[in-house]
Amino acid sequence: MTHNPVASPNPVASPAPLTLLGTGAMGTALARAWLAAGHEVTVWNRTPARAEVLAAEGATVARTAAEAVAANRLVVACLLDDASVDAAFEGADLTGRDLVNLTTGTPAEGRARAEWAAARGARFLDGGIMAVPPMIGAPESGAYVFYSGSPELFAEHRETLAIPAGTRYVGADAGLAALHDVALLSAMTGMLAGIAHAFALIRPEDIAPKDFAPLLAEWLTAMMPAVHQSAERLESGDYTSNVVSNLAMQVAGNTTLLRTAEEQRVSPELLTPYMELMARRLAQGHGDEDGTGIIELLGLRPGVSA
Amino acid sequence: MTHNPVASPNPVASPAPLTLLGTGAMGTALARAWLAAGHEVTVWNRTPARAEVLAAEGATVARTAAEAVAANRLVVACLLDDASVDAAFEGADLTGRDLVNLTTGTPAEGRARAEWAAARGARFLDGGIMAVPPMIGAPESGAYVFYSGSPELFAEHRETLAIPAGTRYVGADAGLAALHDVALLSAMTGMLAGIAHAFALIRPEDIAPKDFAPLLAEWLTAMMPAVHQSAERLESGDYTSNVVSNLAMQVAGNTTLLRTAEEQRVSPELLTPYMELMARRLAQGHGDEDGTGIIELLGLRPGVSA
Ligand SMILES: NC(=O)c1ccc[n+]([C@@H]2O[C@H](COP(=O)([O-])OP(=O)(O)OC[C@H]3O[C@@H](n4cnc5c(N)ncnc54)[C@H](OP(=O)(O)O)[C@@H]3O)[C@@H](O)[C@H]2O)c1
Ligand SMILES: NC(=O)c1ccc[n+]([C@@H]2O[C@H](COP(=O)([O-])OP(=O)(O)OC[C@H]3O[C@@H](n4cnc5c(N)ncnc54)[C@H](OP(=O)(O)O)[C@@H]3O)[C@@H](O)[C@H]2O)c1
Repeated sequence: MTHNPVASPNPVASPAPLTLLGTGAMGTALARAWLAAGHEVTVWNRTPARAEVLAAEGATVARTAAEAVAANRLVVACLLDDASVDAAFEGADLTGRDLVNLTTGTPAEGRARAEWAAARGARFLDGGIMAVPPMIGAPESGAYVFYSGSPELFAEHRETLAIPAGTRYVGADAGLAALHDVALLSAMTGMLAGIAHAFALIRPEDIAPKDFAPLLAEWLTAMMPAVHQSAERLESGDYTSNVVSNLAMQVAGNTTLLRTAEEQRVSPELLTPYMELMARRLAQGHGDEDGTGIIELLGLRPGVSA
Repeated sequence: MTHNPVASPNPVASPAPLTLLGTGAMGTALARAWLAAGHEVTVWNRTPARAEVLAAEGATVARTAAEAVAANRLVVACLLDDASVDAAFEGADLTGRDLVNLTTGTPAEGRARAEWAAARGARFLDGGIMAVPPMIGAPESGAYVFYSGSPELFAEHRETLAIPAGTRYVGADAGLAALHDVALLSAMTGMLAGIAHAFALIRPEDIAPKDFAPLLAEWLTAMMPAVHQSAERLESGDYTSNVVSNLAMQVAGNTTLLRTAEEQRVSPELLTPYMELMARRLAQGHGDEDGTGIIELLGLRPGVSA
């Protein structure tokens, strides 16, 4: 191996400096990841005391948000909610800035924020963080962030953005990061509801939750291909070919689930809304479908209430 | 390698003959798996025509259920529901039989059927089939059956029972197979509800379901450890130590999920019951818990309505 003292023809770019507004639980984790990777980080927090710990770790603490925004081209916000973004940026000059908003919001808030940023002369990227703070800066944790908005901003800062967590760019429409984020959290809510009902059923019995848990996790994992099957059916519009367990059978089977809940004295409230949709779809003459048609019952038409 | 023409000291037992009542979709799949493995199978079905195809495949078709039951010690039933088990066995002599009931039912039905069998001089095992017919007899499909009831019966016939699908013995209480079966199906119902909501959210957008599906499946799989965490907390009774995302934060986050559903014109009906339980638990002063405490709200006390 030879040692070459002249500059490498592909010098590694030095870590880009950046500004971070908001040093709450998540902002602090983000700042630490960037500091650990050698980035110069300028931070601002509404309550200054909450930023001081980062000063000790090498961050520059700005006195005002405007000053923090002025310090670097790349400006990341990780604040409580959309309203706090308005409050924090009040009076800051965003001209020529690359704003990355990691504050959780809705798709419409992401889109409105993109217009707001454009009107102030900034490029904009919205982000949805799929992780809790302890997962940030730990690549093995699987943490990642959905990004949507300016493809140029994303391409330019991708390496920096990839420091605290993985990156998934989902489109130029700034609302798409929030939509992906919320869709995944919503699906998780359903899964957690099902898990809660299952544990409630076994609770009155002499079954150790730790013996039951592997069976439950294995079963739900085995059923995961339903996600891909639904996607294929939604794209093809064919809900009836090669159905192994049709809606009519499933609705009949629901009675066993409800009678068991009653026997075990467990409230059926977490199961009944989906069962009612199954029954409604069946009543509409779709007993030969798999479950995908139920998705059509969830969409509300404008001006029509649920 | 030497060839030894004398009988092996550990001769492989020849496949045990058995009787199967019910040759519907599932019964037919079971019969085929046993026939393929070399078992002599005597079948009976209320509607005889539906058993004829199995005769062509080597099964013996009995004219009456009583005759089928008389033919073999091991008698398997795979009928529509608990009432059809009563109907089918009417007049059959169960003395000395080993009855395995693979008819879906509730835990109480499994327990009552065990007493019924004992009163008739039969050993009894209840089963809950975690598979659809195409998975039967295909070990790579992951199909299995929960069994509960007589441990002696299970030990004696384990190899035969393992032919159509894997076996999981969950206890001597005959109600436990149905309870495990229903608990897993209930959890799956919740997961499917969450998946339906997620697809409904992205439907109005220019997102291909097939691009979204891998993200969704990956996310739900990544959240699966929640099952084990809940089990550990249920056993320890400690719902508050090392909580990374507490109930108060989760309830606050729910507003983003609900506002997004509204923006996307998707009915929130599949999410709201669990969110209401979260809010109720929070209101009871448990904002520092993870989600496990919600399970306690599902259990109904005798005499108290939901
Ligand atoms: N923590 C998680 O597990 C997690 C996971 C995924 C996404 N997120 C998202 O990350 C964002 C930050 O969450 P977090 O956990 O860091 O929350 P947090 O610890 O409560 O911090 C909230 C931050 O917002 C600031 N803030 C609130 N209202 C403000 C206002 N009106 N003006 C200026 N600043 C304001 C707070 O400043 P003060 O210190 O002055 O109050 C603080 O810096 C949220 O959108 C959250 O949904 C969090
Ligand atoms: N198919 C599945 O995906 C699946 C999965 C797991 C568990 N299982 C369970 O397996 C069992 C059988 O299901 P399957 O799919 O085979 O149903 P199926 O195709 O509808 O067959 C039902 C069977 O029950 C018989 N039966 C109905 N009422 C009867 C009565 N009063 N007396 C005597 N026999 C009667 C039928 O006889 P006839 O032919 O005379 O009507 C037929 O043999 C059910 O408990 C089901 O829940 C099925």
